[in-house]
Formats: sequence, C-alpha cells, structure tokens
Amino acid sequence: MTPRFRISRAILDGETADVYFLRSKEVLQAEGLDPVVTMEFFSSRPGLLCGILEAQQVLAQTLPEDAEVMALSEGEVFEAKEVALRVTAPYSAFGLYETAILGMLAHGSGWATAARECVEAAEGIPVVSFGARHVHPNVAGLMDYAAIVGGCAGCSTVEGARLAGVEPSGTMPHALILILGDTVRAAVAFDKATASDIPRVVLVDTFKDEVEESLRVAKELGEKLQGVRLDTPAERGRVTAPLVEEVRAWLDLGGFSHAKIMVSGGLDVARIRYFVEQKAPIDILGVGSHIAGAKPIDFTADIKAIQGKPVAKRGRLPGITPNSRLQKISLAPRE
Amino acid sequence: MTPRFRISRAILDGETADVYFLRSKEVLQAEGLDPVVTMEFFSSRPGLLCGILEAQQVLAQTLPEDAEVMALSEGEVFEAKEVALRVTAPYSAFGLYETAILGMLAHGSGWATAARECVEAAEGIPVVSFGARHVHPNVAGLMDYAAIVGGCAGCSTVEGARLAGVEPSGTMPHALILILGDTVRAAVAFDKATASDIPRVVLVDTFKDEVEESLRVAKELGEKLQGVRLDTPAERGRVTAPLVEEVRAWLDLGGFSHAKIMVSGGLDVARIRYFVEQKAPIDILGVGSHIAGAKPIDFTADIKAIQGKPVAKRGRLPGITPNSRLQKISLAPRE
Amino acid sequence: MTPRFRISRAILDGETADVYFLRSKEVLQAEGLDPVVTMEFFSSRPGLLCGILEAQQVLAQTLPEDAEVMALSEGEVFEAKEVALRVTAPYSAFGLYETAILGMLAHGSGWATAARECVEAAEGIPVVSFGARHVHPNVAGLMDYAAIVGGCAGCSTVEGARLAGVEPSGTMPHALILILGDTVRAAVAFDKATASDIPRVVLVDTFKDEVEESLRVAKELGEKLQGVRLDTPAERGRVTAPLVEEVRAWLDLGGFSHAKIMVSGGLDVARIRYFVEQKAPIDILGVGSHIAGAKPIDFTADIKAIQGKPVAKRGRLPGITPNSRLQKISLAPRE
Amino acid sequence: MTPRFRISRAILDGETADVYFLRSKEVLQAEGLDPVVTMEFFSSRPGLLCGILEAQQVLAQTLPEDAEVMALSEGEVFEAKEVALRVTAPYSAFGLYETAILGMLAHGSGWATAARECVEAAEGIPVVSFGARHVHPNVAGLMDYAAIVGGCAGCSTVEGARLAGVEPSGTMPHALILILGDTVRAAVAFDKATASDIPRVVLVDTFKDEVEESLRVAKELGEKLQGVRLDTPAERGRVTAPLVEEVRAWLDLGGFSHAKIMVSGGLDVARIRYFVEQKAPIDILGVGSHIAGAKPIDFTADIKAIQGKPVAKRGRLPGITPNSRLQKISLAPRE
Amino acid sequence: MTPRFRISRAILDGETADVYFLRSKEVLQAEGLDPVVTMEFFSSRPGLLCGILEAQQVLAQTLPEDAEVMALSEGEVFEAKEVALRVTAPYSAFGLYETAILGMLAHGSGWATAARECVEAAEGIPVVSFGARHVHPNVAGLMDYAAIVGGCAGCSTVEGARLAGVEPSGTMPHALILILGDTVRAAVAFDKATASDIPRVVLVDTFKDEVEESLRVAKELGEKLQGVRLDTPAERGRVTAPLVEEVRAWLDLGGFSHAKIMVSGGLDVARIRYFVEQKAPIDILGVGSHIAGAKPIDFTADIKAIQGKPVAKRGRLPGITPNSRLQKISLAPRE
Amino acid sequence: MTPRFRISRAILDGETADVYFLRSKEVLQAEGLDPVVTMEFFSSRPGLLCGILEAQQVLAQTLPEDAEVMALSEGEVFEAKEVALRVTAPYSAFGLYETAILGMLAHGSGWATAARECVEAAEGIPVVSFGARHVHPNVAGLMDYAAIVGGCAGCSTVEGARLAGVEPSGTMPHALILILGDTVRAAVAFDKATASDIPRVVLVDTFKDEVEESLRVAKELGEKLQGVRLDTPAERGRVTAPLVEEVRAWLDLGGFSHAKIMVSGGLDVARIRYFVEQKAPIDILGVGSHIAGAKPIDFTADIKAIQGKPVAKRGRLPGITPNSRLQKISLAPRE
Repeated sequence: MTPRFRISRAILDGETADVYFLRSKEVLQAEGLDPVVTMEFFSSRPGLLCGILEAQQVLAQTLPEDAEVMALSEGEVFEAKEVALRVTAPYSAFGLYETAILGMLAHGSGWATAARECVEAAEGIPVVSFGARHVHPNVAGLMDYAAIVGGCAGCSTVEGARLAGVEPSGTMPHALILILGDTVRAAVAFDKATASDIPRVVLVDTFKDEVEESLRVAKELGEKLQGVRLDTPAERGRVTAPLVEEVRAWLDLGGFSHAKIMVSGGLDVARIRYFVEQKAPIDILGVGSHIAGAKPIDFTADIKAIQGKPVAKRGRLPGITPNSRLQKISLAPRE
Repeated sequence: MTPRFRISRAILDGETADVYFLRSKEVLQAEGLDPVVTMEFFSSRPGLLCGILEAQQVLAQTLPEDAEVMALSEGEVFEAKEVALRVTAPYSAFGLYETAILGMLAHGSGWATAARECVEAAEGIPVVSFGARHVHPNVAGLMDYAAIVGGCAGCSTVEGARLAGVEPSGTMPHALILILGDTVRAAVAFDKATASDIPRVVLVDTFKDEVEESLRVAKELGEKLQGVRLDTPAERGRVTAPLVEEVRAWLDLGGFSHAKIMVSGGLDVARIRYFVEQKAPIDILGVGSHIAGAKPIDFTADIKAIQGKPVAKRGRLPGITPNSRLQKISLAPRE
Repeated sequence: MTPRFRISRAILDGETADVYFLRSKEVLQAEGLDPVVTMEFFSSRPGLLCGILEAQQVLAQTLPEDAEVMALSEGEVFEAKEVALRVTAPYSAFGLYETAILGMLAHGSGWATAARECVEAAEGIPVVSFGARHVHPNVAGLMDYAAIVGGCAGCSTVEGARLAGVEPSGTMPHALILILGDTVRAAVAFDKATASDIPRVVLVDTFKDEVEESLRVAKELGEKLQGVRLDTPAERGRVTAPLVEEVRAWLDLGGFSHAKIMVSGGLDVARIRYFVEQKAPIDILGVGSHIAGAKPIDFTADIKAIQGKPVAKRGRLPGITPNSRLQKISLAPRE
Repeated sequence: MTPRFRISRAILDGETADVYFLRSKEVLQAEGLDPVVTMEFFSSRPGLLCGILEAQQVLAQTLPEDAEVMALSEGEVFEAKEVALRVTAPYSAFGLYETAILGMLAHGSGWATAARECVEAAEGIPVVSFGARHVHPNVAGLMDYAAIVGGCAGCSTVEGARLAGVEPSGTMPHALILILGDTVRAAVAFDKATASDIPRVVLVDTFKDEVEESLRVAKELGEKLQGVRLDTPAERGRVTAPLVEEVRAWLDLGGFSHAKIMVSGGLDVARIRYFVEQKAPIDILGVGSHIAGAKPIDFTADIKAIQGKPVAKRGRLPGITPNSRLQKISLAPRE
Repeated sequence: MTPRFRISRAILDGETADVYFLRSKEVLQAEGLDPVVTMEFFSSRPGLLCGILEAQQVLAQTLPEDAEVMALSEGEVFEAKEVALRVTAPYSAFGLYETAILGMLAHGSGWATAARECVEAAEGIPVVSFGARHVHPNVAGLMDYAAIVGGCAGCSTVEGARLAGVEPSGTMPHALILILGDTVRAAVAFDKATASDIPRVVLVDTFKDEVEESLRVAKELGEKLQGVRLDTPAERGRVTAPLVEEVRAWLDLGGFSHAKIMVSGGLDVARIRYFVEQKAPIDILGVGSHIAGAKPIDFTADIKAIQGKPVAKRGRLPGITPNSRLQKISLAPRE
Repeated sequence: MTPRFRISRAILDGETADVYFLRSKEVLQAEGLDPVVTMEFFSSRPGLLCGILEAQQVLAQTLPEDAEVMALSEGEVFEAKEVALRVTAPYSAFGLYETAILGMLAHGSGWATAARECVEAAEGIPVVSFGARHVHPNVAGLMDYAAIVGGCAGCSTVEGARLAGVEPSGTMPHALILILGDTVRAAVAFDKATASDIPRVVLVDTFKDEVEESLRVAKELGEKLQGVRLDTPAERGRVTAPLVEEVRAWLDLGGFSHAKIMVSGGLDVARIRYFVEQKAPIDILGVGSHIAGAKPIDFTADIKAIQGKPVAKRGRLPGITPNSRLQKISLAPRE
C-alpha cells in the first residue's frame, strides 16, 4: 500500500521554494527557452532513502507523461554520491520543485537513517518512535513514517501511523498519573475506559520506587497487565540495566513473568548498545530525540545533460552518472 | 507586526499528538475529572526562544478566557532549565496540545539558536538563510522565519520572508546558468527579465575561473551589478579567504569597487570564524545546512500544581518554579 | 593530646623490616662499626604529613637520649623533596626501623592527603571518613586517624576515633533495615534502643523511593530525627544533586526543615566538586574508598652525613639539606 | 600448609568495625531478633582473591558449628560481581565482622592482583616483592604474603616470608655501603659476616659507575658472587635496558657469566614490559610501590536472604546468586 | 655506473669538521700515538642508506691500502642500531673525516628514506623529485640523487640527474606563462623552441580554470601534447582528487585520452595516500618539500676496538657488533 | 664585516637549478622577449631570515647595474607571507637563479630560526652549535653560520666560524679519550699539546661516573680546568637536571667552583626548557641535531609585475606587495 501524503498548496505554488527558482522561471520564459534537462539528486553521505514516494507524488502532479523518472526505492540504502533520483523532463515542468524535493529527501532520509541505526543497535528488540515532541507538528507524522521506513516497529502519532499503515503506540503520560494521584488508580481507570485491544502498559516511575510500583500494578491488573514502562529521569540516574534486571527479578518472583518491560527516556545508539551489551531484559525500546532530532542528510541536485548533451558545473563530472540500481517510476495519477 | 501561522486541522485534531494524550482524554472524561493544572515548559539546554508566538496562536484557540499563560518573548535568550512557558488552565483545554507546543518550541528554538551562533561569529557581516533545501517544505518557511528571529538579515523562501515581514533574498541558481550556457549571457537575461528593484547578484563559479567570470560580468553589467556570489564546491577546494581577496583585488583593479562579494557553500560557525579571522573582504554570508539542520532544542512539559497544590513527578521539584522574566500573554482572538 | 599508638612487638623486633637491614646489622657488628649518621626522610611528591607522631613513638623507644630528631609536625603540608624528618644518631640505634618509619609516613600521608583533597573540594561541608571496609583491619583505625589529621570531621571506627580524640560517627547499616523489614520500623527500634546522645540519622534508600521514605521517617520521628542518609547505589544511578534537592524540597514542604541530609556512596573529589558546583543542599558527606584506597605517598630515607662528613649515594646531593621548617622533637618517654 | 595470621583483640572486639554495627547489635538485641541470614561478599571489579584464609580464621572463631560458609579459594581469579564468599548463619554471630572481612579481602586482593600483573608482564623472569617501605608495618607482612599469593617468587620481610612459607629475600641497603665507604669493602664484609646460604648479591650503583663497580666486586668475590643489583635512581636516568646489556657484556667479557643481574627501582607493569620487549638480560626483578601501593579492590557485603526468604536492598537482585565455583570451607578449630 | 661526487678541498682539509678533531690530531701526534682502531657507524633510526658511495670516495683518498672497510650498499635498507659502515685503520688516516662521513650518511639517508616513503605510498604511480628549491644549491644535486636512490623516477636538477645517470625532468614554470601572457601561447612557443625529444607537459593553472585551460592546450597541440600539470595553489584549495577526475573526464570527452595528468604542489605521504585511495587518475606525481626537507637520519660513530682489543664508551657495548650483511668495499683509486 | 661565501661554478651555470628554467631561457630567447619583471620572495611560515647575504652575492654577479633589489636584513624576523626579497630586473638576468636563491633562503632561515628557538628557550645560557655531523659537509659551514645569525654564541666547524667571524668552539671527542685510555690522561695530554688560549673543557662521561671523573680531572688540572662537558648517552638516561646539580655540588664541595659545566647530547627546545625550569646550574649548552636537522622554511618566488604592469598567477594578488621594512641593497662588486 502506498501512503498518501498531503502536498500543500504552498509547496505547489513555490512559496516554500528558494525565490531564485521563481525568478529563473521568469527569465527562461522571457528568453523563450525550455530545454529537456536531466537532473540528478544525490547525497555526499550514505544513508537510508526516505522521501522518494512523496517526491514522486509531487512530480506526478507536474511532469508531462513522457518525462522519465528513475529512482531508488523508499527504504533502500544508498552510497555517498550515488544518484538516488534522476529526472529527465522539460525544465519548466519541475525546476521550481528542486527545493521541495531536496528537502523531502534530506529530512526523510535523516530520520530513517537514524532509526535504522537504533534498530541495528537494538539487535532484535523492537524500537518504537516516540519523538513527535521534538519536531514541529507539521512534520511529526512524516518523521514517524520515516522512522518506520527505517525499521521501527511502531510510532506514537496518529498521522505517522496512518502513513505507515500501522496502529499508533502509546502507554500513558505522567500527566494522567499526576492528575489521578496514584499509579494504581491511573492503571485501573485506564483499564476501565479504553478499548480492550489497546495494550495495558503502565508507566511506573511517577511517584514511587519503580520496583514497588511495578509490583503494585501487577497485583492489581494481574493477567491484563501487558507491561510496565520505565522512563526514570536523568535527575534520578536514568533507567540503568541493573534497574531493568531488578524489576524483572521482582516481577518474576511475584509470579508476573507475563508482564513485559518497556524502556524509554533519552535513548540513543550508545545507550541502546549499553543495554544490549549488559543483556538487560528489555522487551521494547522507545526512542525519541535521537531519531526526531537527527540531522537531515543533505541532497544536491545537478543538471548533467541538456537536450541530451553532457554538461556540468565546475566540480562535477559532465553527463549522466551510471547507476544500474535505479528503476523507472510511474507518474500515473493515483485514484 | 505579529506573523500569522497556519495551524493545520491535523494539529488541532490531535493527529500529530502522541496517541496517549488522546487516550488520557477519554480516561479523564470517564472519571469525570478536569482539574485546573499548572504546566511548565522548559529545556535542559540554553538557547534563543522561537515558536512561542505560534504556540500562543494554538492556545488562543483552545483555552478558556480565564486561563493564565505566562511566557518569555519570541527571540529572548533562555537559560538551561528556565521556564519559558507556564499555562494554568483546565487540563482538558490544552492537554492534547502538549506534543505540538513542545515541537514548535524545540524545532523553532533549534533553528533560531543556530542562526544566532552564525550571526555572532560573523561579527557584523550580514547572514542570510539559504537552507530551505535541507528541511521538509512543510517547515521550510518556519525555519527561515526562525533564522530571522535568531538574527539573520534575510532568507530565501517566500513563506519565510512573509512570516518575518521581509523581502525574500536570492541570486540565481546554477541551473539557470547551465541552461543559458554562459554566465554573462545568464546575467544579461536576468537583468532584462526581472524587476529593477531585485538586486543583480551573479553566481560566478559555474563554468570559468571565479576571477575571470567576475571581471566578465562586471564589464558587461557595469554599475548595475550589485555583486557576485562565490559558491565554489568542495571538489574545487571550497571558497577560501585568499580567493575572496583575489576576486576583490581584481575587481578593484578593474574599477569595480562597487560590486559586492557574497559567499555561500557549506558555511558553518567554524568556517565563518575562519573568514572573519582571515579578514576576508566578504559583504554577505549565505548559510544553509548549519541553521536548517540544527538539532532541535528539546523541551519538557511538567505538571507542577493541581488545583493550586504543588505536585511533581519523581525527579522534579514540586510546585511552581519562580521566574520573574515571564510575562502574561494575551489569548484574545486576533482579527 | 597526643594519640597513643600500639607499636607491635613484630615491628620492634624487625619482623616487618626488609630482611637486609637485619643482615646489615650483623655485618656492621662484625666490622665493629657504629658511626653517628644523619638520615633524611623525604617524598618525591608533595602532600600532608601524617605518621610522624607514630614514628616518634618508635624512635623514643630506641634512640639514645643525645640523638637529634628534627621533623615537620603531624598535619603539616610538605613540598616535593622537602625533608620531613631528619635523624642524627648512631646507626645501630635506628637503622632497623627505616622500613617501618617509611611505611608509617607513606601510608599515613597518603590517607591524610586524600582526605585533605576531599575536605577542600567540599568547601565547608563536613566530611566524615567511612572507609574502614576498604583497608585491612590492622590499619583501619590508623586510616581513620589520618583522615582526621587531613581535615575530616569524624570517622566510623572506634579505634580511629579514639586515636583522634573524637566520638565515632555512624548511622545504620542496610543490614539492620533488611532484618527489621521496614525503614520506619528500623528507625523506631534504633530510637528506642540507643543512647539519646547518639544522633538519629536514618538510611532511606533500602526499600522505597528516597523521597517517600524520608517523609515517612520524618513523620514518625518528628523533631527527634536528626537527618536522613542517601546512599543510592550505582545500579540506581547513585545519589545525584537533583535527588538531594528533591528530598530537601519535600522535607521542607512537609515541615521538616530541621532534618539534615547526609550523602554517601562512591564519593571522590570529582563527585564532591559536582555536588558543590550544583549547590546540592547537603549537610554531611561520607567518603570511603577515595581516602581509604589512596595510594601511599612514598618516602625515601638517605644517609647524608657520617660522623658529620657529607656523603651521598649517586643521584643525591651530599650533606644535610637545609629546611628551616624542621623542629626538634622530644624523645622523652611518655608516662 | 595454611598460614597462621594474628587476628588482634581489637578486631575481635569490633574496635576496627564501623560503629554502626556495634549499635545495630544493641538494637537487634533490644528487639529480640536474631534471624539466620545469608550474606554474600563480592567485588565490582575482577581480580585475584587474597584474604579469604584470614577471613576464614575470623569466622572459625565466631560462627556456630552449623553455619555454612562457601567461598572461592585463596589465589583464585574472580569475575566482577562474582560472589567470592557466602555466609549463612545467625546474624549476631558475624554481623560485627563485616567491616573487617571486607577490609581483609579488599586489601589482600588489591596487592595480589597487582602482583599477578607484574608476574604476567615479566614473562618468566622471577619477581620479588620489595615494597614493605610503602605500607604501614602493621600490614607489611600481609602485603608480602599477598604478593606471593599473586605469583611473586619471594619477598623482603621476615613476617611476609613466614606467612607464605618461604625464606625472605634481600641484598644489601645503600646505607651499608655508605657506612663502609666502598662497595667492594661492603661486599667483602657482607661475605665474611653472613651465613653461607645467603646469596651474595651486591648493590652496584652507590658510588661509582655500575659497570666499573660490577667488575670490581666480581673480581673480588669471584665465584662467590651470586649477582649484582642495579637500582639506579631517577636522577641518574633509572635502570635502562641498554645499561643491563652493558653490564652483562662487560661481566661476560671479564669471565663472570655466572653472576646474575637483579633490577629494582620504580618498576611497574609498563616498565617491566619495556625490559621484556627490549630483551634486557635480567635475572630477577624487584618490585616495590606498584604492588604495595595498589588500590584495594573494594568488596561489598549484601544480605540476600533472611530465614531462607529472598530479600535485597534496592539496586540488588533478591535471593542467592548462583556460583558453582564456591566450595564449602571448614570452620573447625585449627590445632 | 658509479656516480662521481665532487669532494671539495674544504672537506679534505677538515674545514667542515668539528674543530676538536683537528685538535685531537695534534694531541695524538704530540703523544706519538696512532693505533689501529675500529670505528662503527650506525643510526638509532631505521632507514634507507644513501651517502655510502660518497663516503667511500673520501676514504679511498685517505686510507692506506691495507685498511679494511665493510659497509652496506647504497640504497639498502638498514635497521635501527644496525652497523652500516665499519672502518678498521690507523686513526690518523680518517679520524678527521668523522664529521663529514656522518653528515653525508645522515643527509643522504634522510632524503632517500623520505623518497622511499612517497614511492611506496604512490603504489606504482611514478614520483619525480621537484624539491631543489627547498635546499641550499650546494646540496641540491645530492638531494635529487638521493631521491632517485630512494626510488624516484626522475628529478629536476641537471646535477642530480647527472649523478643518478638519468635525464632531468621538467615542464614549464609559472614565470614563463606569466611573461608570455597566455598558457596556449606559452605552450606553442615551448613547442617551437625546444628539442623534439623533450616532453610537452603544459602547466594549466596559471590564468584560467584548469579544465578550460587543459582543453585549450589540447586543442592547440593535439597529439604533440604529452600531458598537463596541475599545481593549483593552497589559496585555491590545492589539487583535489575530484579536480583530477574532472580534468580527465573533459579531456576524454574532447578526444584527448592520450594526454597524461601530472600533479604537484605540497605533496607529502598523506596527500599521496589520499590520491591513491580516491583512485584519482594521476599519471605522474611531483614531490618537493617532503623529500627535500626531510629530517636527516642522524648517524653515530663509535670506536669499538683499539689494536683489536674491545673497548667502548659508557652506554655502548664493547667490541665489534656482528653484522653479516656488511660487505668489504674497495679503496682502489677510480680512473 | 660581510662574510664571503663560495658561490660554486655549478650554481652560476644553472646545474643546480630546476631544468625548466634552462628551457624557459631558450624559449624566451627564441621569442625575443626579455621584459623587466618584478619578482617577490616570501615564505608562508614566519621565521628569522638567513641567506639573504649569499643571495645578494649571486645577484651582484648577474644583475645589471640599474636593477633594483629590496630586501630585509640578514637576521631579521619576518612574518608569514611577508616579502623578504624583491628583485626588479630583466628576467634573463636572474630567472635562472630562482631555484638557488630560494634554496639559500629556505635552508638558511630554517637553521637560523631553529637556533633562535633554542636561544630563547635557554634564557641567557649561551648556546653553541654542535650539529655539523648531521648535515652534508657541503653545507656544514653554512649551517653553523646560520646558527650564529640565529643567536648562537659559537659553532664547531672552522668554516662556519670563519663565515661568522668567530673562533670555532670545541672540547674533545670520545675518540681521543678512548685512544688515550683514561680521561685524566687525555686531559693532561690535551693541556700539554694545545695552545694556551684554547679552553680546557674535559668530557667526563666516557669511562667512569661523571661525578668521579669530574673530581679527578679537577684535582689534576686545578685552576687550568675551564669546565667539564656532560654528554651522557640515552642508554645511560641522558644528562638530567639532578645530575648537573650533583656534579656542581661535588665540584663546589671539592673547592672547584671555578669549573664550568657544559651540557650536550640530544638537546632540543623541550629539553632546554626542562633544564631552565629545573634551574640546573648549566653554563653552556651544545645543540646539534635540533638546529642542523631543522626543516627548511620554504620560500616562494612570484612574478608580480611585468614592465610595471600588475600581474599574478591564480591564487596570488596582482601587483607589488607593500612592505615598508624592505631596504634597497647594493649590487656593487665587492673588493
């Protein structure tokens, strides 16, 4: 299933483009020039590609039918300098979207690549994207989608989950527990009020010691408890591998081996590796800022041929860069 | 003048929120609970605040009239752990927007703070934001706006310029020169086709040596030439301070002292400092990825009082955090 | 008051000496030689002198009355290479004790110097020596004594306290709380069983969250509670500055401002500096391994004159090293 | 043969214990509580165990016959966190000795582990412990014993040698040579005065060049010379590998190939490795401060079960930690 | 063929010797002493030997016929401390030349060793020595000769080429192009004026972009063009691997695949490795300062036997150092 | 007094020049071109200028009378990029000597600058150049001359001393002592055989301990002894500050306060600083390889004007570089 992105009016009108593309359009019109050009998009860093489907959706709305678009696939790994997208079409049909397409590829691939790093570090423990709070809401869903393209098992926003075709993931916020005044009370209220197919995962670091709170909710919810979430803040020493072990030991000793342990709170690749090396008995990892705040992987667009003749600006090699991994992508309108 | 942000339907409907806030809403409704809570927003890193006006616009649409909102101002510098926003209102009126507001502050302050670093490093040379291509177009305008809040003199997107109340900045892309086949021809066509109040700044690194090209366009455009832009790629050794000096020396020797020099291409704080230390005769700096790709400055939201009674989750101090710099902000609807 | 050290039979018999001193004694006797020599003791590192009183006690038992002993005082700071002790006497009267005296000075000065570093880092917060468990019990009391010579306000062993002329310090071990099964029960039992002049300082990290436990014991003991001790283990993130602040805030909020906070657990100079820099509201610091496990500050003994004539082995300067800070010390037997 | 340690009265009376153990004893007596507890001793660092025989000697004097003590053996290597000693007995029978036992294990294992590092670095060259002067004489013999447990071939103190069941090692001190005024005279006097089974190893760096002095004593003592000791001080560039080679070459050239070379003076693991890598022809290495001044390897004691029921303080796992390497040790009184 | 070095009068008269050798000569004459000594020359660093042929030429002029000279060969690799030259002769016959011979070996081996490093880093791309301008002209030819002994394919000075038995290499200096005012004009003039067997290699970075200039000279000289030289200065970002690729691509696209590319300008081992790793299509490398400015590899001369009897100064082993790689070299006068 | 350098035939014939200068000469002759050019010589590193007098001697032989030569003075400090020499003359009159002049300046300034660093580090202790053995004898005298230009108080070669107008310095080589078999015998023989104005400085590390040897020669030569030289090799730990102190102490104790101490052996700036910081009582420092093996300070020559018209190759600024410190230098033939 292909996700449906919302391409805003502002993008299609060029309001988010560098203004010199709008001016170039005027200049070329005045000169009466509109050659068929071949433009290549690549990055100087390697990564995992995300954003190509959204870019395709833009091009499908603006390119003529006989234009040729070759690309790597969403989720594919690319090398430094490898061409990820090549468009051959009259310049007027897409020149204005250079900024937008570069931005989609840069931001999307930055998030997806960071997600992949976490997933690889986790060595099989599922990773869920919890980073919506670290990016502007205009891109929160896209960030979550990219995290799933990069290998995450789920995400917290409704929009991200919709784009990726999964159910959104979540436990309960500290706010709910603070308002209800007690973790067990919050757990019971949550259990009563929400649909039965939503997993009962209780946050256990709000008021009391994590071990004590875990045992209290486990005794109260019994088999209905799917898991506990440890999110101990830095002020309290963060979640450590021994803490996870300790919670696991007491839950097992109390007969609650079915209850899973989810860990979140400032996780990055180094911290995930630490947990994996320490063999902490974690069932799910929730990652936020490391994915959401990942630096975009910048892309560059170069005209490499005009009316089929090799050209290049200084610093680049003239003519098309061979890449047998590119595949032709469809511009047919989607119904 | 206050900028008008577009707050999307998806944000107001909570589609970009962490799903557990939607579920908490259901739980609290089922429990019949809606206390007045005081929530504080702060970051663990210092920075320059941006996003508070957009957050205010969200809150103005959702809070009751008697709610109290205290905040620092857009563009103000904040300390680590300093409260930048404090909302006192019934929880149901804004709990769902915690994710969105945190994201606006995080992303906006990240960009504005990076811009400020560049502006400070530039020691008086104007800095223009050229980074739209490094972020998703959904936030390109907001990024440019934040750059200007952080001290930039201009930006390249139409949307960013509109939000900041300035004219968009731009010269010409390599694509235009490649299509026209010669820098001088491109300069002449640009001069002919665009409004006379748009500065003529010609990009001089596409085909020939930068010095030779600068002299060719200067001879052709004469007094109409406002400046040349050096954007030499890394493959050709980037723009160096001696190159700028050399272009300046030959332009002066040719009688073109009026032509300014703009430099762009991979500039970051270290590179700007290098130019400043070398006393390179630069008139404008164009910065892209360093601002656009800045890591968000993560914010946290904590409930610190419920119905006026101090509370806190473990790791935080109970009750309101004093901050005499906060000012009450208006929730009146804007006409 | 001068402390009374137990100089064991083994020391006086030379059993703890390097065996070659016993053999040298035989050789010199066989040769019929027993010149008056001047021997100087110094270290190649600077430090705070401790052990000189114990050395004096050894020398007082073995030197003839007309021997001359010059020394710095117990607790005085010495420079690298500065002579700290100079003995002028017939060699046979003290040659055998070179090993013992060097060891007393080295071990004692190592402990005292480390204590001084902690005390200086603490900037006025009293430091108590809790390190007996890190050294052999044969020297545990001497270590505690040296810590107090170095500036500590107290120590945990009975012997150390006796040597230093203070009362031993202590709260309660985890073992007591584990056996009684609850921190409050342990606090009450302690209060009932011990003399009223022993401070009630309750260890609050055994079973429950430190904040919760602090409030429970404060409510139970009220004004009788002198303080709480935080000793959170590394597995739980150690004691952090924010945890201390948090305990302080809740105690104050509960009306228990009189209760002090003691912190222990893996403290070293860097960790003490961290607490001081973070302005954590700590009343007492308990330091163990950093003082007890301090590397001895090695001393060297050199013969510098024989029958008044300057001599030296290769690498050392011949003759007495001037040091106006040395004072003559008494060899009179103590009653 | 098992060594006989002197367990002092002060230890058995608890004078070297943390005072809170004395107070806990009173509290538990007042409460009428004396459960059978299981206490485990372990270190957070790996090492080579020393001190367990002395601890056993303490426990044999205080535990009832039916108590169970499981332990690793003296000289065995242990992992980080591995249980090295487990005592199951009424708490009142041994609770007071927690401090002493921890100290014996910590100090002993620290010395033994450092010795092992030297021995391993020496790759077959015998290492002798010469560090008595760097520790308090109360533990000098124990330090030497631990060094031999760690692999040293000998030690310099009479007490250490007795505990380890070997003869003490030693050459001659600089003091002897200085008093006799000439190295050859000292060598001759030593040869005349000491028993014939004591090796003649002459210190050759006191007055003259090491090569010259070596040849002089070799010519004088001939076959009776067992070896020379090089101890060149730092002021003279320390003993270097080429110096050893040079002494060896001249001794061989003079027909004294039977004379061995011993090296001492500030040797640590790095310096030993240097000599081994340089293939310096050394026959014996004398190590002092690196072993004697080794940081104790801190041990921790935790109650893990009370009357057979798993317990733990926060941060530790409840119940007994499995370790199949532990062996039951005898508490029978030694005759 | 053996090179003929010019041994100056000043050298043979001892004017370049340390004056104390002249004085020692007088002293020994006055004492009537002239023993046969064996002197060994070695370095404390490993390297590639150069200078031995020149030293041989000095010795051939001064030693009696029955003297014995053993040596490694010119161009052979030597180990640290390996004897490279051993002279056995009456001291008066060569003592005065110790300084000169050490200097020849030190300077020559320094240059040759640096050349070898470049040649090895170049992995098959020929390296030419262009460093005459970095050393005094008195040694410029010797430096070039040493570079070829070290593996270089050519050198730029007439004298160096003569000593090494090759033709000197060179393209054209910037001065020529600046005087002629245009690169193409200079290329044509050079082609007209010089012998047809001198390769036409044109320097292409003086006035215009390197790519543009390469194409211009290629079009003008056609098949006669042997290659272009890139020497882009640091001010312009130095020669980069992508620049070489770009020039190669455009030359190939223009049909000039026969034209080679030579690179020079600040090349050292690291820069050569960079080009090799980047697979830059370079045909010849010109190295200057890295070889010419190489630190001399210091040699030491030691007397190890006098009239056949082993001797040594302190720090050295007495007697001849075995080295089976040494070969006897001839002192016969060359015709 | 101006030194007289020997400018060899090979230099004047261009045999030590890069061959392309010889070819350029032909090309320009064929083209009939010989413009007056202005060439500037500068370095990219700062330093102390040496070689300008020798360059002047070359130019005086080849330039026409009306040529203009501006230069900094021998021994003056120059900045990075500062013009040190500017020649305005017909190109044919000096183009061929570009290589030679650059080499003279580079090598000379490299040596002089390194000497200056040593002299500055020595803080008033005289430094003597002992490095002839580290460079080829063709430049040994020039190196010594440059060392004196850089601030050295003397040098060891006859030629260097002649150029610098001083007497050569020297003590005695190890060879002399080895041949005479004893340091005192060598000292006596030296004293007998050499002119009375040559200082008696005896090398005291050949056979015996430095202290012993110093006292032996002092006793023998008495007032005639000017000093002792310590040159202890690395194998024996080098000369250390305490060794110098020790020798000083024993000499003073023996009544030989008049005897100076000279130190040599592997001295560089760091080692000199060490001695100065340790306040070692050194009277003279002998430096070898640090000065002699200093990397040349590379110079560049650029044509900046042709027939008065500003020109430049890419990377350099067109036209003459202002430098008011340059002074016109004479080309008059010296008698």
